[in-house]
Amino acid sequence: MTGDLSRFSINQMTVKQLSLPELADACVRLGVPGVGLWREPVQSYGVDAAAKLVREAGLTVTTLCRGGFLTAIDPDERAAALADNRRAVEEAATLGTDTLVLVSGGLPAGSKDLHGARERIADALAELGPHAEQHGVRLAIEPLHPMYAADRCVVSTLTQALDLAERFPAHQVGVTVDTYHIWWDDQAPAQIARAGAGGRIHTFQLADWTTPLPEGVLNGRGQIGDGAIDMREWKGYVEAAGYTGPIEVELFNDGLWARDGREVLAETAARFVAYTA
Amino acid sequence: MTGDLSRFSINQMTVKQLSLPELADACVRLGVPGVGLWREPVQSYGVDAAAKLVREAGLTVTTLCRGGFLTAIDPDERAAALADNRRAVEEAATLGTDTLVLVSGGLPAGSKDLHGARERIADALAELGPHAEQHGVRLAIEPLHPMYAADRCVVSTLTQALDLAERFPAHQVGVTVDTYHIWWDDQAPAQIARAGAGGRIHTFQLADWTTPLPEGVLNGRGQIGDGAIDMREWKGYVEAAGYTGPIEVELFNDGLWARDGREVLAETAARFVAYTA
Repeated sequence: MTGDLSRFSINQMTVKQLSLPELADACVRLGVPGVGLWREPVQSYGVDAAAKLVREAGLTVTTLCRGGFLTAIDPDERAAALADNRRAVEEAATLGTDTLVLVSGGLPAGSKDLHGARERIADALAELGPHAEQHGVRLAIEPLHPMYAADRCVVSTLTQALDLAERFPAHQVGVTVDTYHIWWDDQAPAQIARAGAGGRIHTFQLADWTTPLPEGVLNGRGQIGDGAIDMREWKGYVEAAGYTGPIEVELFNDGLWARDGREVLAETAARFVAYTA
Repeated sequence: MTGDLSRFSINQMTVKQLSLPELADACVRLGVPGVGLWREPVQSYGVDAAAKLVREAGLTVTTLCRGGFLTAIDPDERAAALADNRRAVEEAATLGTDTLVLVSGGLPAGSKDLHGARERIADALAELGPHAEQHGVRLAIEPLHPMYAADRCVVSTLTQALDLAERFPAHQVGVTVDTYHIWWDDQAPAQIARAGAGGRIHTFQLADWTTPLPEGVLNGRGQIGDGAIDMREWKGYVEAAGYTGPIEVELFNDGLWARDGREVLAETAARFVAYTA
């Protein structure tokens, strides 16, 4: 691999066809220094075993994806969500990452109250923030594209994410800046500056915007360079805001998943260099 | 039909399976006073003939959909788009409506410059606004949901739409407020107030947000009441902003199109009453 990969991190979901050992091995061979992990495959492999695997491979775990889904009204569902998020924090600590990405959750069935759902997220963060701090983990609220507002995440903009995060200390709660979700928003550059000034850019992720969107709009995140997003522009915004940390590429894409995972990883690393250097 | 339909308008696309005469007849039978028309079916029927048909049926044409697609860089494409929009203005005048809805257009092939595309829309409005005024027609910029930013409309929020519209007199350029496109945006209520204060709410349209979204995300606009949007809340915002005009229901929905058009019209009118009265 030619080109500077020192800030590159591959989000595990991008190459979910690879097992954890395959992923670690492929990263080492290519010189990829960081991985963003997901709870489900890590749990399947065993959290302690996964931590040992990536540590011995010399990989930095840049984030754990994901906690969140904090919008339930039902008290039992709510208690279960909080307990699960506490476990997610602990898993993050075990894996040695300081960042847990939060996908906040959509509207409960039958509800049309976005504001109320956003307030329930704030209430949950008040409980989870101190727990995260105790474990050396920061919560990173990820605004998801507004097309997910109903069913996945009522936090749709960086503005909203920061309005939530700023109720808490920056070392407890910050934001995830992901190009796929915010590229359309002309207010986002100023919000990145706001986030940077407050020390709240806890992770920076890349995916490109390609159309047409697939049914369900989940697995259409485009390979870097294939879509409408100027990656250098967004990298410039986070750097101007003082962010010099890892840059994760996180793609959910049926086309990429159907291919050889090592080949996709190599391609993604090459695209990272070509479109961000 | 029981309930007050005095402000109800059916957008032609909602029941596109009906011919223009069928639509006019169904409206008269149900007591639907208004229709929003589309250029393509009107052109197929003949603009003058369509104008005569709706006039004789006693229907108010609340809007003509749609002009726009003003983001081309190529000079010939740009000139063609401007000429087509001038014709759209003239068709609106012939049909007796004072409102031409604008879908501004997406990124030209290969471009990643949203800001530049938005500025080209402003340049085009400077040419089209006076032409519209001469014909007694107002241009109504429709912010489309951010999921259309790349391929259909780089104007994604009411804020952006008003930032564009306010460069011109309100009787030339205003906005379309459509629940489907803005329901997720916590800044939209304040922007509706801004639009109302400036006399720029040129039309108000309803559609509900249902998931999962279909492939291509065009034809998933939900029947009123089937989704996540509180219609009374949004009607309240536009009324508080001083808007007392027609309310169009505009649905693109393969499921509705597969049914009998008169039945869909009756259902839509009933839903309008049930969810907005």
